[in-house]
Amino acid sequence: MDYSKSWVIAVDAMGGDNAPYSVVAGLDIAYSVLVKHNVSILLFGDSLKLAPLLVKFPNVNAISKVIHSSEVVAGDDKPSHIIRRGRNTSMWKAIESVRNKEADAVVSAGNTGCLMGLSKLLISTIEGIKRPAITSLLPSQNGLTAMLDLGANTECDEQNLVQFAMMGSVFVKTLLNKTNPTVGILNIGTEAGKGLTYLNNTDTLFKESKNKYPFEYKGFVEGTDIFKSKVDVIVTDGFSGNIALKTIEGTVNFIKSEIKHVIKKSLLAIVGYLFMLPAVRKFKAKMDTKKHNGAILLGINGLVVKSHGNADAVSFANAVIYASNLLSKNFISEMTEIITKNNM
Amino acid sequence: MDYSKSWVIAVDAMGGDNAPYSVVAGLDIAYSVLVKHNVSILLFGDSLKLAPLLVKFPNVNAISKVIHSSEVVAGDDKPSHIIRRGRNTSMWKAIESVRNKEADAVVSAGNTGCLMGLSKLLISTIEGIKRPAITSLLPSQNGLTAMLDLGANTECDEQNLVQFAMMGSVFVKTLLNKTNPTVGILNIGTEAGKGLTYLNNTDTLFKESKNKYPFEYKGFVEGTDIFKSKVDVIVTDGFSGNIALKTIEGTVNFIKSEIKHVIKKSLLAIVGYLFMLPAVRKFKAKMDTKKHNGAILLGINGLVVKSHGNADAVSFANAVIYASNLLSKNFISEMTEIITKNNM
Repeated sequence: MDYSKSWVIAVDAMGGDNAPYSVVAGLDIAYSVLVKHNVSILLFGDSLKLAPLLVKFPNVNAISKVIHSSEVVAGDDKPSHIIRRGRNTSMWKAIESVRNKEADAVVSAGNTGCLMGLSKLLISTIEGIKRPAITSLLPSQNGLTAMLDLGANTECDEQNLVQFAMMGSVFVKTLLNKTNPTVGILNIGTEAGKGLTYLNNTDTLFKESKNKYPFEYKGFVEGTDIFKSKVDVIVTDGFSGNIALKTIEGTVNFIKSEIKHVIKKSLLAIVGYLFMLPAVRKFKAKMDTKKHNGAILLGINGLVVKSHGNADAVSFANAVIYASNLLSKNFISEMTEIITKNNM
Repeated sequence: MDYSKSWVIAVDAMGGDNAPYSVVAGLDIAYSVLVKHNVSILLFGDSLKLAPLLVKFPNVNAISKVIHSSEVVAGDDKPSHIIRRGRNTSMWKAIESVRNKEADAVVSAGNTGCLMGLSKLLISTIEGIKRPAITSLLPSQNGLTAMLDLGANTECDEQNLVQFAMMGSVFVKTLLNKTNPTVGILNIGTEAGKGLTYLNNTDTLFKESKNKYPFEYKGFVEGTDIFKSKVDVIVTDGFSGNIALKTIEGTVNFIKSEIKHVIKKSLLAIVGYLFMLPAVRKFKAKMDTKKHNGAILLGINGLVVKSHGNADAVSFANAVIYASNLLSKNFISEMTEIITKNNM
C-alpha cells in the first residue's frame, strides 16, 4: 500500500435512504482508516442539513470540506432526466469534482442508474472500454469472488464480456492480490452449446486465444457455482447479474427470517441459540453484506464507488474504506495501464 | 380430489444419478399414497436390473408392470440426438405410453432437455401454446410460489410470457386452490421502463387488458421478492429463471456449509445446536427441496413431471406423489379447458 500520498474522496452526502445521517456517521466510523490513508473528504450536500451533523461528529468535520449543493437525485429519477437537469445535485457535483481533479474518487449511496449515467457523462470511460460495469465482491467458500455486470447493461455482446473479464481480473489482482486470476462466464449449464449464443461465442473466443488475456479462462459457471470459489471473476450481462445478486439477497433474507421465526417459537431453541452465539457471530461476520458494501463502476476513468441504497452508517463506512483501499493501491492507473497494453 | 378413477403413471426407471435404485425405492416410499389414489405404474427400464429391485420391494412389484427398454438417455445427451436415435430409451418409451393413452402421466429424473424435446415430439403441446415451460414450486413466506420458465426457453417474447402467466395461474389454482391467482414478471426493478423491452411490453399488455386474463397482474417483481409471497406466479424467460433457481440452490448450500463449518469448530455451538434440533427440524421441513421435488413441463398436452437429477428415494417418491395429486385434480383437462376458453 502506498500511504505516502494524500487523497481526496468526494462524498455524495445526500444519496441513499438514510442520508445524510448515515453518510456523516459512516465517515465518523471510517475516520481512523481515512486518517491512516491520508484521505480528506469533499462533502457534497445541503449545508444547512450537514452543519449540525458535523457538530455532532467533530472528527468528520476535521477532515471534510462541505460544498453546498441545493438539489438531490431521487431514487426514482431517470438518468436521462438528471443528465439534462441535474447539474445542481450533490451527486453531479461530487462526480464533477473527480472530473476536475479536485477529488480522486467519489462515493455515493444514491440512484445507481444516475450515478452510472453521470459518471459516463462527466468522467467518461477508460479509453477502449465500451461499457462500464457494476462490480461487487461476494463472499465465497475460499475467500471472495468478483461478479460483473450487476445491472448497468441489460443487454451485452461478446466484446462487452471480454472487457468485463479483463477489468474484473485487474480488479481482483489489485484488490485481492490474485496473481493468476481465473474467469468464468455465468450460464445455465457448463457444457459448450448451452444457453445463449453470444455466451458460447465468448467461450470460444477465450478458448481460442488463451494466451492473449491476462487471466485464466475456466469456462461456464452456473448459479450453483457462485459461492464455490471455482473462479475469481464471474462475468455476465447486467440483467442476469442483477437477477442473481437480488436472488442471493432474497434467499439470505428468507432463510434469516425463517430461522428467527422457528427459534422464537421454542424456549429450548432460544437457549440453544444463546449457546451458539459466538459461532453465529463468526458466521455473520463472513456473510456480512455490510462489510462488503460498495460496488465499483469498473471502466469509468476514475474511481466511483456505489454504496447500497439502504446502507446504515457501518455499511457506508465500509464503502468509503473500500474506496480508500483502492486509492492506496493505485487501482485506476493500474487498470488503465493494463487495458491500454492489451489494446482494447 | 377424485379418488374414484384409477390412473396409470409411466415411470422412467433409468433416469437420474441414482437410478434405478432411487426410483424403485422411491416408488416403495410412495406406495400407500399411490394405492389411495388408485395409481398403478408402468416401469420403463432394463428388466434385468429392475428384477432384483422388485424382489426387494414387493409392494412396488404389486402395482407395477415392467416394460423392458434396452437403452438409456445419458445426462449429457443432446435432445437433437435423442430425437433422432432415442426410440429404444426408457425415457422415449415412457413418454410414448402417455401419447398412446396407456399412461396418464410420466415421471423422469433424467436429462431435462431430452424430456422436454421428446414430450413436445411425442405428446405435443396443448393447442395454442407456443412454448411449454418448466415450472416449479418454491417455498415462500406465506406458502408456495410457482415460477416459470426455469430453463426450457432461453429466449422468450411477449406471447410466451402471457402464456406462461396463463398456465402458471391455472397451475396454482388447481394445485394450491388459489381462487384469484396473482402474477408478477421477474425484472431488475419494479418501475415501468426498467430492464428489457419485451418485459415492459408484456407489463403494458397485462395492464391494458386487466379483465381479459383469469389472474390478477401485480407488476414487476425482483430477485429479492421471490420468497416474499408477493405473487402466486412469477413468469420469466428460461435463462433468467434458471439463473435464479440455481442461484437459490447455491446460496442455500453455501449457507448450510458455512453454518456447519462454524458449529463444528465450537463445543458450545454443538451443545447449542442439540438444544435447537427440534426447531432446526421444523425449519428444514419448510425449506426441504426434497418435499418440493418435481418440476412440471407446463404446456405439454399430458402430465410430465421432471424429478431433480440427483434425487434420492425420498425425493423421487415426492415427485411421483406430486404427479398423482395432479392427476386426481384432473389438472391437464382443467388446463386445456381454460386455455381453449381464452382462445390462446
